[in-house]
Amino acid sequence: MAQETADRPASAAVLVIGDEILSGRTQDVNTRYIANYLAQIGVDLCEARIVPDDMAAIVEALNALRSRYTYVFTTGGIGPTHDDITADAVARAFGVDIGEDPRAIALLRERFSEGELNPARRRMARIPKGAELVFNAISKAPGFWIGNVIVMAGVPMIMQNMMDVIGPQLAAGPPVLVETIEANGVPEGAYAEGLEEIARAHEGVSVGSYPAFTSAGFRNQIVLRSRDAALLGRAAEAARAMIKALSKELAR
Amino acid sequence: MAQETADRPASAAVLVIGDEILSGRTQDVNTRYIANYLAQIGVDLCEARIVPDDMAAIVEALNALRSRYTYVFTTGGIGPTHDDITADAVARAFGVDIGEDPRAIALLRERFSEGELNPARRRMARIPKGAELVFNAISKAPGFWIGNVIVMAGVPMIMQNMMDVIGPQLAAGPPVLVETIEANGVPEGAYAEGLEEIARAHEGVSVGSYPAFTSAGFRNQIVLRSRDAALLGRAAEAARAMIKALSKELAR
Repeated sequence: MAQETADRPASAAVLVIGDEILSGRTQDVNTRYIANYLAQIGVDLCEARIVPDDMAAIVEALNALRSRYTYVFTTGGIGPTHDDITADAVARAFGVDIGEDPRAIALLRERFSEGELNPARRRMARIPKGAELVFNAISKAPGFWIGNVIVMAGVPMIMQNMMDVIGPQLAAGPPVLVETIEANGVPEGAYAEGLEEIARAHEGVSVGSYPAFTSAGFRNQIVLRSRDAALLGRAAEAARAMIKALSKELAR
Repeated sequence: MAQETADRPASAAVLVIGDEILSGRTQDVNTRYIANYLAQIGVDLCEARIVPDDMAAIVEALNALRSRYTYVFTTGGIGPTHDDITADAVARAFGVDIGEDPRAIALLRERFSEGELNPARRRMARIPKGAELVFNAISKAPGFWIGNVIVMAGVPMIMQNMMDVIGPQLAAGPPVLVETIEANGVPEGAYAEGLEEIARAHEGVSVGSYPAFTSAGFRNQIVLRSRDAALLGRAAEAARAMIKALSKELAR
């Protein structure tokens, strides 16, 4: 495991909370959105987990992840129904009290009349003690930020709104730059050895190869990622040259 | 935590392996596919994790999951390139040797000529000792099954092909039945309390409420899941009656 240093990039995990993902009802799209967002601001997404709406499962995953990464982003389980238990689970994980937060009630009043603000909707104002609220313009029901854990909605549009609020406050680093090289004509097994050499010769560049099966057959891409633009450029040049040479060889 | 009993349904976890998912390049669709597949054959998917192409991360996640669930399904990292380290990680997690498997080489020979079967492609025949191969008709490169861990490709079409091979061998239970109730006109916060009562009155039915934000505003669905058809029917009837009553009330 790499040594923790002051100039090591911030790390992150995503914790997706919800029975609907594990039952197959709903396709999780939040992890990918957060992954792309974090890559752009230079935070490394190192792990993601999906757990059900279950107190013990959420608390255990939260504690495992928050002790290990700079940030933990959760999505889901902060609505008004009985299965929305994320806020209570976060309070339990941190060992803090939870109760109705007057700031959150004030936000809900912007959307709901006094008569509409029934006990179920007031549940959305339950916030662990010591947390900062995370606003969203769409539903008004806030997420929150406590310690290194950022709690967001599961509805993608609301989660994305919250991410835009939080983003500027995150410890950002140099963004991860990406070079994608199409290897269409060349099979993965033909360039794998050359690619490994390129990976070895360019430490600091992460080198991946991704086949996809399309109606036209396998379509391979080589993806190079680095925070160092010059190094990335040299690795990309080497990969393009390799593919070009192999294409010629295969065409013979 | 529920007591382990002989007639408790089989449980499962998914372990998605690949930098490309955590970088945001690729949308994981395998977890949802496996989730739906398992629900249909009565296996409970309890957790999913996404880890990078990193030996320590894969081994740690594998050991955590395989000790806890009936099955662990992995996807990704069994191709010919240097970043494909899943087979080696599984061997390390189980503490068994790994080497070129003659059965796997025979499969690869169906696709590749002797000249094409270079060291990179032979990597796809590295199988932990004691594992059973999992065939796929598309790429020929096999997945494998060792202990309670089933190792599959990351390319969705190949993974799905492998799932069809494995499915009939899994310890299946009664499928999970689903009732979905549209609550379009009624806001979540208006039916949350009634829904909680329905959940309490129908133990054995998992009750969820899922808002989605569409161009027409929020669109809510109540989803009821159970292995007991009669119980599920009663819960669904109660939920429909509640929504109907609330719709009338709101229309007044």
